[in-house]
Parts: sequence; structure tokens; C-alpha cells
Amino acid sequence: MARIALGLSYNGQGWHGWQTQPAGKGVQDAVEAALQRFLGGARCATICAGRTDAGVHALQQVIHIDVQAERRMESWVRGVNALLPDAVAVQWARPVSELFHARFEAQNRTYLYLLNASAVRSPVLRGRVGWVHDALDGAAMRAAARYLVGEHDFSAFRASECQAASPVRTLHALTVERRQGWFLFEFRGNAFLHHMVRNLMGVLLMVGRGRRPPEWAADLLEQRDRRLAAPTFMADGLYLAHVGYPASHGLPLLTPRQALAHHLALFF
Amino acid sequence: MARIALGLSYNGQGWHGWQTQPAGKGVQDAVEAALQRFLGGARCATICAGRTDAGVHALQQVIHIDVQAERRMESWVRGVNALLPDAVAVQWARPVSELFHARFEAQNRTYLYLLNASAVRSPVLRGRVGWVHDALDGAAMRAAARYLVGEHDFSAFRASECQAASPVRTLHALTVERRQGWFLFEFRGNAFLHHMVRNLMGVLLMVGRGRRPPEWAADLLEQRDRRLAAPTFMADGLYLAHVGYPASHGLPLLTPRQALAHHLALFF
Repeated sequence: MARIALGLSYNGQGWHGWQTQPAGKGVQDAVEAALQRFLGGARCATICAGRTDAGVHALQQVIHIDVQAERRMESWVRGVNALLPDAVAVQWARPVSELFHARFEAQNRTYLYLLNASAVRSPVLRGRVGWVHDALDGAAMRAAARYLVGEHDFSAFRASECQAASPVRTLHALTVERRQGWFLFEFRGNAFLHHMVRNLMGVLLMVGRGRRPPEWAADLLEQRDRRLAAPTFMADGLYLAHVGYPASHGLPLLTPRQALAHHLALFF
Repeated sequence: MARIALGLSYNGQGWHGWQTQPAGKGVQDAVEAALQRFLGGARCATICAGRTDAGVHALQQVIHIDVQAERRMESWVRGVNALLPDAVAVQWARPVSELFHARFEAQNRTYLYLLNASAVRSPVLRGRVGWVHDALDGAAMRAAARYLVGEHDFSAFRASECQAASPVRTLHALTVERRQGWFLFEFRGNAFLHHMVRNLMGVLLMVGRGRRPPEWAADLLEQRDRRLAAPTFMADGLYLAHVGYPASHGLPLLTPRQALAHHLALFF
């Protein structure tokens, strides 16, 4: 038995998130079906670093599998890609020790949210970016972000379906950058609750539109009540961009910004 | 009767090009259906600047219509957008004189081709960018481009279905720029034959891969034989980016690069 780590990118539009679904519309279903065909019929379970929601994309998802088959690493990439739908691609494959675990060895995850603020919607990147028609105050959103960084009880930002044992997470960084009509939000944390990034986006946008002051973010953390916060923002512009592992595992991950430039060619 | 010019952007993926189709899968069908509903049932014919092919996108398509209805220009934008599918959006509307004609007054058209050159395909911008897995020689492609600029008989680059009266067109500019693994090709000409940009892309990529020398482009122009040229390259990365009109018409067009930054946020 050998353990292999794979780096995946996918376009989540039209998929029911990473996790396997009875109807087979999870990205995991497509990946496991391709692996099974590649392995000549042997079933192959996958463990992922971050279970992305419906409609959420991945620049760099990391999974691991345990297999008997001995193949060259580049044959995993080419062979599995030939069997995957266009929406998913293996970017790299690496042999790892049995101490590696895609989920439990992950030290942090980085999500990027790409947002277009424009009076008229643009159809060109529809499904790949979020959109608001309002003008946004970047400084106010950055002020709100400062309250959110750190170890907190994120109950106000947690979906009712969330199955995590604890609502406490550490948000290491939350940055907001602007270029012309585009905003890039970067969220780096140890782990994220269900819908947490989209719920944080909802609150940042209420502040950015001037409907709430930046301090509202601190109030919500304190109140721990999901019903008091903003609606969950659309999934369209959300990307799992990076997963941090101990360097000893030797995974060929790009930084979040390198991955963004590689897959989206943005000017951030 | 009043004439109105409209600026449109659309995502051509899954559409059968601009032109109206019996099955109703032309972008024109969606636009004319939305206009008819907006006008309370009155049919409304559209004339466009450039009839884009199946799968080709538009950052700035220009159309004109003749209408009885008097509405504020911003109500044309909001009202028609509310009735259009997500893949199409009106960006602006302007009253124009009866001397304006979206097709015959157009002095030039600019198409952009966005290409990702990467060993492994990326699913993230699938359908919005072209992809080659080979490394490309930018200098060789620029050398080939220099032969193509000017007034030529473009028979070698013309689809067999092309209905233009003459194969002679003037290509004012053809530039090739690279940023990391991304290439941006800009084609500006007085007008383009059916599949002409995609056929030019096919030849440039043969040269970029080193399979033909740059002078091959000059040979093809001379031979005027479509069968000797390269296959038509995929539509995915092709954008109608700008249409040039006499300034007297006062249309609020962005430059091709401004339109690219507005709709795609690329770093070119």
C-alpha cells in the first residue's frame, strides 16, 4: 500500500460541493469515479483538505489516496485527467509517507474571494466571481476585518447545518485589496466552519456599503447569534486557494497569489 | 421613430454565436426576445457590429435598434438586463442619429484572444480562455504576425461557409504579449472573414510550437488555399473587444484594454 497526495483544481459551478452526494453531483464523486477507472475498477476513497460548498471553486485542493498500484507520478496526472470531466483537473501527484493526511496534517487553509463591484453586471466571468452593484468602502471593510482576525467563537458566521464540534476558529489574516472595480479578499485560518467565509463576506459587504459600522463585526462575534448577522453571500467568487502542510511532506504547492496568477491571470 | 445604440457584453459559451438561429440559441434571439418583452410585445430587430461565432464572447458588442418607445437611457439598461439571461448584459444605451449604423459605420473591430499555455489544463477559466499544453515561442509568433499585418487576400484564413463578397481585408495590428503562462493576442482590422481570427490563431500556434517557420504565414497569404493552413483553433478564448466608430456618434466605448480590465481583471 502506498499513499499518494494529489493537487486538484476545479470549477465548482454546477457542482454540489466537494463531498460525495447520493445523486453523484459532488466533485468527489467525479474524482473517485475517474480514479476507479484509472485503477482498472478498484474503488479508491479520497480524503480532502477542505470540503468546499456547492458552487465554490478550488485553485489548490489537496487530497490523499491509498493505492496498491505502482505508476509514475506523471501518469497519475495525465491518466486521471483524461478520465475527469472538464471541470476538474489533477495539477500534480506526489508519493507521501503514511504520516501524511490531507485533512489532519493541514495547518491552515487560504480562501480567496474575487468580487466585481460594478453598476452593471458583467456576464463574462459569471459563476467565477461575485458581483455587487454598489460602490464599496475598502477602508471600512479593512477596519471590520481587523476585529475578525484572531481566535474567536464564530457562531454568528456558522451555518445551522454545520457539524463541527466547536465554533472556535483562528483567523490568521483577512485582507481586502482593490484594483479598479475589483476586490480581492484573502482569508487565512486554521480551519473554517460551514459557510463561514461566505457569511464573513456578507458582513464585510454590509460594512462596505455603509449600512453598518466596522464595529458591527465585533458585536456579532460577541453575540454569537447567526440570525443577527448578514445573509450568506453568493458562492460564485470563492476559491480554496492554498492548504498549508509541514514542509517535510514536500508538496509542490504554489502560494495563494501564484495559484491565482496561474489559474486566473488576475492583476492582484 | 428613434434610433438607439446599445453596448452588450456576453459569455458565448453554450450559445450558437450572435446570429439568430431556428432553434433560438443565437445571442441575438435572447436579446430580441428581451427587447420585445421590454417593449410590451412589439418586435424589435437588431443590427450588430460583428457577428461572433459559436462560443465566442463579447466584451463590447454594439447593436442598434429603431423604436417608437420613449424611455430614459438608464431604463433601457436596467429594464432589458432584468429580462436577459445571465449570459448577456446591456452595458450602456445611447440615442444616436439615423446616420448611425452599427455595422456600416464601424471603421474597425478589435478581437482579443486569451490563451493559457500550461502543461496541465486549468478548469477554472474553462470556456473563457484557450489552452495549449506546449511551450510557445513568443518571438516566432510576433515574427509571423508581421507578415499578416496589412491589406491581404485572406483566403487561406477563411471558412468555407464564409459569405463575404471579397476575401480582402486589412489587418491594422496583430500583437502578441506574454505574462507568465498567459498570452494575449490582439487583432485589429477593418473587418474579419468567417473564422478568420481562429484560423490566424491556428497558424500562429503552429509557428509558436516551432512546427513551422514564421515565413509560413507569408506563404499561406500568397497561396490563398485554406487546406494548406492550420486547423481552426478553439473559440473559447476569443473576445470581440472593441468596435471603432466616428467620434461624432459619441458612444461610450472603452478601449480594448480597458474593457479587458473591466470584465476580466487580467494583468495585461
